[in-house]
Amino acid sequence: MIMRGDVAVIGVGMTKFDEHWNKQLRDLFVEAALEALDDARVSLKDVKAMFVGNMGSGMWVEQEHLGSLLADYLGISGVPSLKVESACASSGMAFRLGLMSVTAGLHDVVLVGGVEKMSDVTTSESTHHLATAADREWEAFYGMTFPGLFALIARRHMKQYGTTREQLAKVAVKNHKHGSYNPKAQYQRAISIEDVLNSPLVADPLRLLDSSPISDGAAAVIIARSDIARRFTDTPVYVLGSGAATDAIALHDRDDITTLRSVVLAAKEAYNMAKVEPEDVNLAEVHDCFTIAEILAYEDLGFARKGEGGKLIDEGVTELGGKIPVNPSGGLKAKGHPVGATGVAQVVEVTLQLRNEAGKRQVSNAEIGLTHNIGGSGASCIVHILGRGRR
Amino acid sequence: MIMRGDVAVIGVGMTKFDEHWNKQLRDLFVEAALEALDDARVSLKDVKAMFVGNMGSGMWVEQEHLGSLLADYLGISGVPSLKVESACASSGMAFRLGLMSVTAGLHDVVLVGGVEKMSDVTTSESTHHLATAADREWEAFYGMTFPGLFALIARRHMKQYGTTREQLAKVAVKNHKHGSYNPKAQYQRAISIEDVLNSPLVADPLRLLDSSPISDGAAAVIIARSDIARRFTDTPVYVLGSGAATDAIALHDRDDITTLRSVVLAAKEAYNMAKVEPEDVNLAEVHDCFTIAEILAYEDLGFARKGEGGKLIDEGVTELGGKIPVNPSGGLKAKGHPVGATGVAQVVEVTLQLRNEAGKRQVSNAEIGLTHNIGGSGASCIVHILGRGRR
Repeated sequence: MIMRGDVAVIGVGMTKFDEHWNKQLRDLFVEAALEALDDARVSLKDVKAMFVGNMGSGMWVEQEHLGSLLADYLGISGVPSLKVESACASSGMAFRLGLMSVTAGLHDVVLVGGVEKMSDVTTSESTHHLATAADREWEAFYGMTFPGLFALIARRHMKQYGTTREQLAKVAVKNHKHGSYNPKAQYQRAISIEDVLNSPLVADPLRLLDSSPISDGAAAVIIARSDIARRFTDTPVYVLGSGAATDAIALHDRDDITTLRSVVLAAKEAYNMAKVEPEDVNLAEVHDCFTIAEILAYEDLGFARKGEGGKLIDEGVTELGGKIPVNPSGGLKAKGHPVGATGVAQVVEVTLQLRNEAGKRQVSNAEIGLTHNIGGSGASCIVHILGRGRR
Repeated sequence: MIMRGDVAVIGVGMTKFDEHWNKQLRDLFVEAALEALDDARVSLKDVKAMFVGNMGSGMWVEQEHLGSLLADYLGISGVPSLKVESACASSGMAFRLGLMSVTAGLHDVVLVGGVEKMSDVTTSESTHHLATAADREWEAFYGMTFPGLFALIARRHMKQYGTTREQLAKVAVKNHKHGSYNPKAQYQRAISIEDVLNSPLVADPLRLLDSSPISDGAAAVIIARSDIARRFTDTPVYVLGSGAATDAIALHDRDDITTLRSVVLAAKEAYNMAKVEPEDVNLAEVHDCFTIAEILAYEDLGFARKGEGGKLIDEGVTELGGKIPVNPSGGLKAKGHPVGATGVAQVVEVTLQLRNEAGKRQVSNAEIGLTHNIGGSGASCIVHILGRGRR
C-alpha cells in the first residue's frame, strides 16, 4: 500500500518497433533512453540507477550483462544497473523494481527500460527462444510453442463460453486500426475481418493475423519520487498501483486454462493499492500477444464478466471512442512485440495518453490508465495503474 | 541509508556445488530453497515473494521464465517471482532486490535464491555462454574469453605492482585448504603451490588451478523484516549495508584495469550504509573467479593498499586464523562457481559464520562479514555487509 502515488513517471521514450536491420540492441536501447531523458529534462548525471527488462539477449544476440553494457553505452557507467527477466513480462517487472528502489529510499531518479532484438535470427530460432518461457520438460521439449498454447486456450474459451472466431478477428482489426494512428507502430495499416479469417493458419484456430509479430525495439521511462517530480516536468504521471503474480508454468497444471490466475492476482493487488475499481479505468494497454489473450484480459482484469470478453469487442466498448479503449497504441498485434520492451512501452503509451499527447489516437478525458503485461502463457503477470493526478 | 539493519537473514540453504548429472536446474533450486525454509522454520505459505539470480539458463538449459517455473516447482505459485541477471553477480543482485522489496514495505518474508546448471553442455559451449558477460562487439566476437581478460589484468598487476606468480598460487592453495573443511565444496582437497604452478596453462599467466571450475548448484536464503525475524529464528543475521555499481564493460574502456571501479563504488556505498570500515570486517567471501580477482578484491575493498594485495596473502592475513579470513568456504575456486548461485552462496556462508555454525572452517569471534560478488570482468559488483547484531 505504501507505494501509491509516491513515484511519478517524468519522461518517456521509445524507438519505432520494427525490423531494425541496421541497428544493434544497444543502439535501440540508447535511442529510447535518450528520448526519455530529453522528455524528462533529466541529465545523465541525475540518473541514479537503471533497471532493464529483457527476455533473451543471450540467446538472440549472444550478449548478457545488459545492465552494465547498456549503462556503459548510455554514458552512466558506475550506477547500479541490472537486467530482469520474466519472459514477455520482463520490462513490466523492471518497472516494478524501479518503483521499489525509489520507494525503498535508495534512489530518487531512476531509468527503467526494456529492449529486445529478435530479427537477427531465423523465425524458427526465435520461436525456439520464445518457447524457453514455457515449461521445457513438459511443453517445449515436446514441440509445443506459444501459438499452440494460446490455441488451446482459445479453443477451450470458444467451447466453454461460445466465443467466436469473428470476435477474435475483431481484436486484431481494432488494434490494427489503432496502430494506423501510431507513428511508432510496426504495422500502420488497417485490416479487415476477412483479412484475418483468410490469413494462414498458424495453430488452429489462431491465424497469422491473430498473432503479434517478431520485432526489434526499445522503450524507456524516467521515474522519480513524486515530491521532486515537478522539478523536472510540468506533466508528471503518478503510479497509483502495482501488482505482480505468478501461476503454474505449464497449462496442464492449471485448474482452468480460460482464466489466467496471475492476472487476477496481480490486478487485485494493483487495484487495492490504487484504490480504484475496473470501472474507474479510462484506458488500458493489455498484452494481446494473440487475439485470445486480449479477450482473457478483459475478463481477468474485470472489464467484463468471465466468458463475456467476446461481447465487449462486439459492442465496441474497447475501441477508441468506446467506454474503455484498449490498446490505443495498436497493442502488441500492430505496434509490435519486441518481448523485453513491451511492458515499458505500455507505460510509455499510458503516460502519453494521460498527458493528452497521444495525437490521433488520444483517448478523451483520460484520468486513469492500466497496463497489463504477461509472461509466457500467463505464468507471470504485472499490472500497473497510473493516474493523471496523485489522488 | 534507510536499509541498515532493517532486514534479517533468517534461514539459509544450499546444494553441494558439483557436477550434478542426475539433477535438473529446478531440482537443485528446490533442494536449496527447502533447506533454507527448514532452517528458517518458515512454511511455504509465509513466503510472499521470490527473487532468483541466474545468468544464462536460456543458453545452458533452454529454460527462461525461472521466476515462475521455480515458484511453481517449489510450491508457492501465485507469489510474485522473477529472475535477475548481472552475469556472475546475478544472485548478489537478487539479494539486493529482496532487501529492497522488504524495505519498500511490499513484503515481510522473501525467498532469495540463485542457481546455475552448467555441466549439461560442453566446456567450449560453457565458455561461449560465459563470454556473453563481456562486450560481444569488442571482446567476445574476437575470441576473447574470461580467462584471457583476467590474464590481461594479472599481467598488468604483476608489471605495475610486482605481484608474483607464487602469490597468485597462494590464493588457490588457501582456498583449497578452506574448501577441504567444507562438505558442500566441489573440491575438498588441499593443493600445493607446486600443483598450481605445474597445472596446465590456460591464459598466460593463469593456469588451470588459478581458475574456478564449471559447476552446478543452487543456494537460497530467507529474509524478513528485522522486527519480526525472531518469530522464526533465534539467530537472525542482520543486513547492515548493500552497495551495487557498474563499470565500463570492455577492459579497454577503463582508465586502469588493475582497479575494478565497480567494486570501489559498491564497497563505499555498503560501508557507508553499514557505518563500518574495512578494518571492522571479521571475514569476507570474495569473488575469486581467478586468483588475481581475489588479490584485486583485497585492494578494492580496502583490506590492503593498492598494489599490496600480494603481500596480504604472503603474510597469511586472509587465511583461517589470520586477521581477516577470506573465503573460509573455499571460495569460487574450491567451493565451485555455478555462476548464478554464487552471490547467494556467499551470503549463506557469511550467515553460517556469524551464527557460529561453520564447523571446521569457523572464523572465531565473527561479528561482521562481507560478501563481494562481481559480474564479468568487473562491469558489475554487489557488496553486502552482514552483522551478528543489528547495531
